[in-house]
Amino acid sequence: MSAALVANGDLLAGKSPSPATGRVSSVYSEVQASRIDHALPLPAVLINPFKIVDGPPSSAAGNPDEIAKLFPNLFGQPSAKLVPSDSDANQQKLKIGVVLSGGQAPGGHNVISGIYDYLQDRAKGSTLYGFRGGPAGIMKCKYVELTSEYIYPYRNQGGFDMICSGRDKIETPEQFKQAEETALKLDLDGLVVIGGDDSNTNACLLAEKFRGKNIKTRVIGCPKTIDGDLKCKEVPASFGFDTACKIYAEMIGNVMIDARSTGKYYHFVRLMGRAASHITLECALQTHPNITIIGEEVAQKKLTLKNVTDYIVDIVSKRSELGYNYGVILVPEGLIDFIPEVQQLISELNEILAHDIVDEGGLWKKKLAEQSLKLFEFLPQAIQEQLMLERDPHGNVQVAKIETEKMLIQMVETELEKRKQAGAYKGEFKGQSHFFGYEGRCGLPTNFDSTYCYALGYAAGALLRSGKTGLISSVGNLAARVEEWTVGGTALTALMDVERRHGKFKPVIKKAMVELEGAPFKKFASLRDEWALKNRYISPGPIQFVGPSSNAVNHTLLLELGAQV
Amino acid sequence: MSAALVANGDLLAGKSPSPATGRVSSVYSEVQASRIDHALPLPAVLINPFKIVDGPPSSAAGNPDEIAKLFPNLFGQPSAKLVPSDSDANQQKLKIGVVLSGGQAPGGHNVISGIYDYLQDRAKGSTLYGFRGGPAGIMKCKYVELTSEYIYPYRNQGGFDMICSGRDKIETPEQFKQAEETALKLDLDGLVVIGGDDSNTNACLLAEKFRGKNIKTRVIGCPKTIDGDLKCKEVPASFGFDTACKIYAEMIGNVMIDARSTGKYYHFVRLMGRAASHITLECALQTHPNITIIGEEVAQKKLTLKNVTDYIVDIVSKRSELGYNYGVILVPEGLIDFIPEVQQLISELNEILAHDIVDEGGLWKKKLAEQSLKLFEFLPQAIQEQLMLERDPHGNVQVAKIETEKMLIQMVETELEKRKQAGAYKGEFKGQSHFFGYEGRCGLPTNFDSTYCYALGYAAGALLRSGKTGLISSVGNLAARVEEWTVGGTALTALMDVERRHGKFKPVIKKAMVELEGAPFKKFASLRDEWALKNRYISPGPIQFVGPSSNAVNHTLLLELGAQV
Repeated sequence: MSAALVANGDLLAGKSPSPATGRVSSVYSEVQASRIDHALPLPAVLINPFKIVDGPPSSAAGNPDEIAKLFPNLFGQPSAKLVPSDSDANQQKLKIGVVLSGGQAPGGHNVISGIYDYLQDRAKGSTLYGFRGGPAGIMKCKYVELTSEYIYPYRNQGGFDMICSGRDKIETPEQFKQAEETALKLDLDGLVVIGGDDSNTNACLLAEKFRGKNIKTRVIGCPKTIDGDLKCKEVPASFGFDTACKIYAEMIGNVMIDARSTGKYYHFVRLMGRAASHITLECALQTHPNITIIGEEVAQKKLTLKNVTDYIVDIVSKRSELGYNYGVILVPEGLIDFIPEVQQLISELNEILAHDIVDEGGLWKKKLAEQSLKLFEFLPQAIQEQLMLERDPHGNVQVAKIETEKMLIQMVETELEKRKQAGAYKGEFKGQSHFFGYEGRCGLPTNFDSTYCYALGYAAGALLRSGKTGLISSVGNLAARVEEWTVGGTALTALMDVERRHGKFKPVIKKAMVELEGAPFKKFASLRDEWALKNRYISPGPIQFVGPSSNAVNHTLLLELGAQV
Repeated sequence: MSAALVANGDLLAGKSPSPATGRVSSVYSEVQASRIDHALPLPAVLINPFKIVDGPPSSAAGNPDEIAKLFPNLFGQPSAKLVPSDSDANQQKLKIGVVLSGGQAPGGHNVISGIYDYLQDRAKGSTLYGFRGGPAGIMKCKYVELTSEYIYPYRNQGGFDMICSGRDKIETPEQFKQAEETALKLDLDGLVVIGGDDSNTNACLLAEKFRGKNIKTRVIGCPKTIDGDLKCKEVPASFGFDTACKIYAEMIGNVMIDARSTGKYYHFVRLMGRAASHITLECALQTHPNITIIGEEVAQKKLTLKNVTDYIVDIVSKRSELGYNYGVILVPEGLIDFIPEVQQLISELNEILAHDIVDEGGLWKKKLAEQSLKLFEFLPQAIQEQLMLERDPHGNVQVAKIETEKMLIQMVETELEKRKQAGAYKGEFKGQSHFFGYEGRCGLPTNFDSTYCYALGYAAGALLRSGKTGLISSVGNLAARVEEWTVGGTALTALMDVERRHGKFKPVIKKAMVELEGAPFKKFASLRDEWALKNRYISPGPIQFVGPSSNAVNHTLLLELGAQV
């Protein structure tokens, strides 16, 4: 049955028996165990001797002058590309640190394995340190030496539990000082930061500081986030997105079959993605739901909550006329953040709640602007209460706590009831709410994420060995066979723009939003009317690790790369 | 990429183009498509010529005298067993109807395929009618003729959408009359009812009526329910349980890795199973959570909600001392139905809400018994409000709407806060709630459910051909290789007891509850203390359809069959 492989305590004996090495005491399921020895193909350029070739000087994503000021030592540096060579020139030993930063994404362990295997294969005798618990581990010099035995049980496994992650940031002069001390203490030649947009921005700041102080430690970033909002031409995907979307799509597909079999429920599915709606879009492309709300479109068209509700209600009504009193609706977690009028209402509420007395009689509502009052009255009572009662420690309304899918169900119910009274709707409507979130962050990585992450890690090692710093590991040509993938590094400063905060310019890697002119959205937009009224459901089923479907790549990536899906 | 197989409109042309044939317009995912032609092994006895051998006369699960009175024509009939024979004696054509009854369970389509293939293989020229939308389809004579082309796209697929299901019952004399008319109109030799305990009870009543009236239509049941509470020695499993538990366990396993990686959340997972806690127990055996609440144990030990809360809080405190401020907790959907004091409170509330005025000042609370008042005051405010406000059309409190996992999080939070004030707890507690329900009912059936259902259907066909009625299709020896599975039918009356309702005896198939003396619970009980404090998480990963893990069977079944897991 299960319990096929016990991560051997002996194997790991003496290797820092901290609670973080959770897998020491783990029993593996058969599927987990079957993944550990799964052989990972490498891009051809990484298999044979290679050298690094620089591209032309780079600029910035916006405001190059400001970026140049913020990164005097790094700005303008070229991107790097690995190309075949006659021999591997430089085989010196390295001391490398690696850190996981921010939320989990399937594949993180494989980035670390990739770095480790690179060092074993190409720089024998090197040392790899894993900083524990995220960037705080760097600042506190809390680390473990990663050995073959230590890494083994985590190969191709989900989660970040090998060294755990954290959300601390290295930002203040004092924190930079601490990081510097750790780098010096461990005599680090390099550091790999595995994280999202913020973490990679901070990685670049660290690279800049080290370079500015002539500290030898180079810093390389790796693109991680299930939300899929860290990407650009050179870095076509952030890892974890593929696996997370497939896990959510499995569940959505199941719910679709349930909806069609039962014939009496509308399933409202809220999906992860606060800032961008990539996950929702990808899941829609994989499963063909009746209705999908994309936050970026709502924002661009300046839709109101009433518009969104009416859009849903119109489709529910039409479906009812066709005899379908069921359906599946996908909504991004961040939907209400995309609606300008909601933002306005919340900022007014924050102001009122901070300064005024909220009287039972509702006189306080007179302080709301007309538009905001109208919206407030339009909201279901439970949401009104939530807005008034649940505050964060700063007294602000906790938008994140609002269960958007439940709110929409209530608003759709109310509107349908009105139409029923008016004789314009004769159907039955029963909403069921779902939130698919944590389930997708720590699943076993798909073959794509496993292989992609391994290449990202291997490339990070190669970049460090060749003395590169301030680059993000970049693996491209992902629509082709793995052998043909390109490998290199992209200047992090080239991905940056500035934002003005508290009167100062701050560098940021802009989140990649769903582009309404991009191929994934356009494909969705060309099909959604058909999906709305005809039931074109696809149930992707559980992720397979062997067989024909096991190497499928997500639609978003393929469409962005120009492939026909 | 995907879209590998389009269920061909041509294939299905002219075959009742009703909206129920949803798959006509479906596009299949690669995984769905790969399952359609998955070859299903049959038990050896079904491959070669077989005959049916009767066992000894049967009795009832309880009150045999009353069951005998209720089923004068069927009571005492022997169970049947298929054994190898020299030749298949009887090859006459049959007209058979099949109906899906109640909630979806993965594998239902395979039962139908099994019946169909049996008829093709052993009774050529037979006709199979699928009644649409559950038992109502029988009463309204709403059916479709199931052909090879019609069935093909549904082979090994989840859902009940081939003919859809429904929750109507054939109970009143008028309804029996309608069913009789349909049986006569279609000249049915037999009817297969695929359903849970209620549906099989009704199937037996129908068999009794038909037999009593000398109508030739025989009725055979098939055991369906993801809840796993329809089983006995002869019918070791209800189909769908295996798949549903594996889908839930995949999600739980992912959440566990997330918990361990993040180190800061307690995930409270509510699982389907209102009447019995089999799903929760099986998921615990598959994943090793820190805390699992089994409803049957709570009931047997007459635990209060405070006891359950304290049990959780004690473990959370101890874990905190060990440095673990995270964990995973499984709770059955029906938990509060198992708590006697909650039942008492709710019945008092129903009484009060029906007859008294609920005053703002709370004077109405004086009407509650002391124990009930104490419990009411112990409940989080949101739950108190839910109890007072949400009523069903009969004015009763809607227990089913209470989100048990959220309620527990609030109660645990409150208790931990008290302990913190008293200096007895120093940890941090953050709860995250999950409900895994609909996602599991319509997944692609596992290899086990696919094969088991196919054998159940094939056997149902064989039983009907041999003139049997009032039996439930029974496939046994499930821990062995499929070839060695036993096949037969069990007298439905043998599974029955009576309940007194409105002064009358009513036959019921008693739901199989989690037995505290059964092997699955005992195994769980022997390990739970270790799981509580040490993190023995197992992440089963997504269901695989090929490879070594694809033929695994759930722990509950294997343990009940005496296998070592």
